[in-house]
Amino acid sequence: MNGRQEYTPHPYPGAVADVGEFGLIDRITRTLGPQPALVLLGPGDDAAVVAAPGGSVVASTDLLVEGRHFRFDWSSPYEVGRKAAAQNLADIAAMGAVGTALLVGLAARPALPLTVADGLVTGLRDEAASVGAAVVGGDVVAADSVVLAVTALGDLQGRPPVTRAGARPGDRVVVAGRLGCSAAGMRLIESGDRDSPLAALHRCPDPPYAMGPELARAGATAMIDVSDGVVADLGHVAQASGARIVLDVGAFAAAYAVDPVTLADVLGGGEDHALAATVPPGSPLPAGCVEVGEVQALGEGQQARVVDRHTGDVLEVAGFDHFGGDLA
Amino acid sequence: MNGRQEYTPHPYPGAVADVGEFGLIDRITRTLGPQPALVLLGPGDDAAVVAAPGGSVVASTDLLVEGRHFRFDWSSPYEVGRKAAAQNLADIAAMGAVGTALLVGLAARPALPLTVADGLVTGLRDEAASVGAAVVGGDVVAADSVVLAVTALGDLQGRPPVTRAGARPGDRVVVAGRLGCSAAGMRLIESGDRDSPLAALHRCPDPPYAMGPELARAGATAMIDVSDGVVADLGHVAQASGARIVLDVGAFAAAYAVDPVTLADVLGGGEDHALAATVPPGSPLPAGCVEVGEVQALGEGQQARVVDRHTGDVLEVAGFDHFGGDLA
Repeated sequence: MNGRQEYTPHPYPGAVADVGEFGLIDRITRTLGPQPALVLLGPGDDAAVVAAPGGSVVASTDLLVEGRHFRFDWSSPYEVGRKAAAQNLADIAAMGAVGTALLVGLAARPALPLTVADGLVTGLRDEAASVGAAVVGGDVVAADSVVLAVTALGDLQGRPPVTRAGARPGDRVVVAGRLGCSAAGMRLIESGDRDSPLAALHRCPDPPYAMGPELARAGATAMIDVSDGVVADLGHVAQASGARIVLDVGAFAAAYAVDPVTLADVLGGGEDHALAATVPPGSPLPAGCVEVGEVQALGEGQQARVVDRHTGDVLEVAGFDHFGGDLA
Repeated sequence: MNGRQEYTPHPYPGAVADVGEFGLIDRITRTLGPQPALVLLGPGDDAAVVAAPGGSVVASTDLLVEGRHFRFDWSSPYEVGRKAAAQNLADIAAMGAVGTALLVGLAARPALPLTVADGLVTGLRDEAASVGAAVVGGDVVAADSVVLAVTALGDLQGRPPVTRAGARPGDRVVVAGRLGCSAAGMRLIESGDRDSPLAALHRCPDPPYAMGPELARAGATAMIDVSDGVVADLGHVAQASGARIVLDVGAFAAAYAVDPVTLADVLGGGEDHALAATVPPGSPLPAGCVEVGEVQALGEGQQARVVDRHTGDVLEVAGFDHFGGDLA
């Protein structure tokens, strides 16, 4: 993780309730610092104004809840902030767009230490800055647990968005970024090894942001952020495109399953925020992409699924249902 | 509240956990229905794409937490959804912009009835539609209580934004929309009268959205959404503009303090989401605006405050601090 500075807490004591809503907003605004030129109006007014030079804006929202999506005993506030920004900015990249701005809603326990709020905001700021974006606005409220609501905005630079629905028979299926690292890292953290590079990648993923626009320029017909697992997410592409996606499991194993990362981590693990895309046969692939399969037309009676090239079987790898784990 | 349909629950049983994350997203997407033309890509992909014809996008986020910002024993889910959308769209109007899109993060208890989720989404959809906007995307997660994270986007139609910082000596101070109704309505609900029109306005405010762009076209130099109380919010304008705002309390009393709405409700009550603006002396005022004061230059040693025209005293009306009430 080049260029990433670890967060150093301010030496100020106190909790968010000690400074109140407006004090906390002032403090956050100071932490954010100067805004880049594309931010026409930053924090402090009723709303922010961000340049949209391409004539449209790409927008995505995620909610992260303490104890469900992050744990302060596993991750520093700075890491939670970076990850919250990363998962939204990866959605923007998956449309072929460049992230421009984040808006952040922070629900905080009144007793939350100010240093935790500082860490969250610094992490959000730094991850945004890594793509040239900025935190331009937000809201702070009191709640019983910490909830982060992050909205990312992006610009398509005049290109059409790369949706999930454009994959065509004959296209190659490619992956950019890491697979399985976050899942393997979580297992290491659970077993008590918090210091390995994989554990760090679970706490703070490293999405290949620049590959989103690069794959779009290379003619990508469909693209998706890998957040639920590459097989599950390519299943969304297959369904949206009305096509079969035939994967070479051996290619995944060779490229990504490096001990202790297992093939199950690679195929089923989410949260690395890799990008999976389909690219027409003639187009040169951007450097760093791994070819893992191809798109096929649906045969008579076939369903739009993800299939193993060698066995012909439908690949079934459990994805993550955010309510499924909460039924008990 | 013309044109507002009361929400009729679907007759489906069940809780959000019964349909899971993807089932709930499908259900929400069906509830949202067709999207207007300015939505270039609606729900269902990694991110939405919304037209930004003016070359910039206005964006604002609010978090609403069950038990703190809304109560299901006071308000129907439909009303909570409308109010959540209204307070964000009012922020967009206060910049002089037209709302184009909402993104909604919904944190739900797994046992939350699907009909409650339906009501929230229908309310958000209908309030957005009242300004020509649409819910274009979002996120659903499990949590211990219901949290709504709403981000509103808007378009300035080529005009510069009307910030809080542009008020100039000699400008008139004007208000568009209601003042004090929400505060009086809350008091009526607390006393058991839930059926009065004021109680309905507390549950479901009626911001003067169209007046935002209209005041901008009329040359407004500063504008703010009245969410904390008109005196407190005009204090933000005074500070940002480095000017004194001199108010005619009698004008407020005459225009807004109609029993049971008290003058304290009018001056200190938030949540009606009126618009307060400053307009240069020469400009014709849009119909429906009430003139309540004027902007004065700071004299020697004077602070940027809101002052009573007749007494010369600084007007001190408590605003609402979202953490202040939680210090105990």
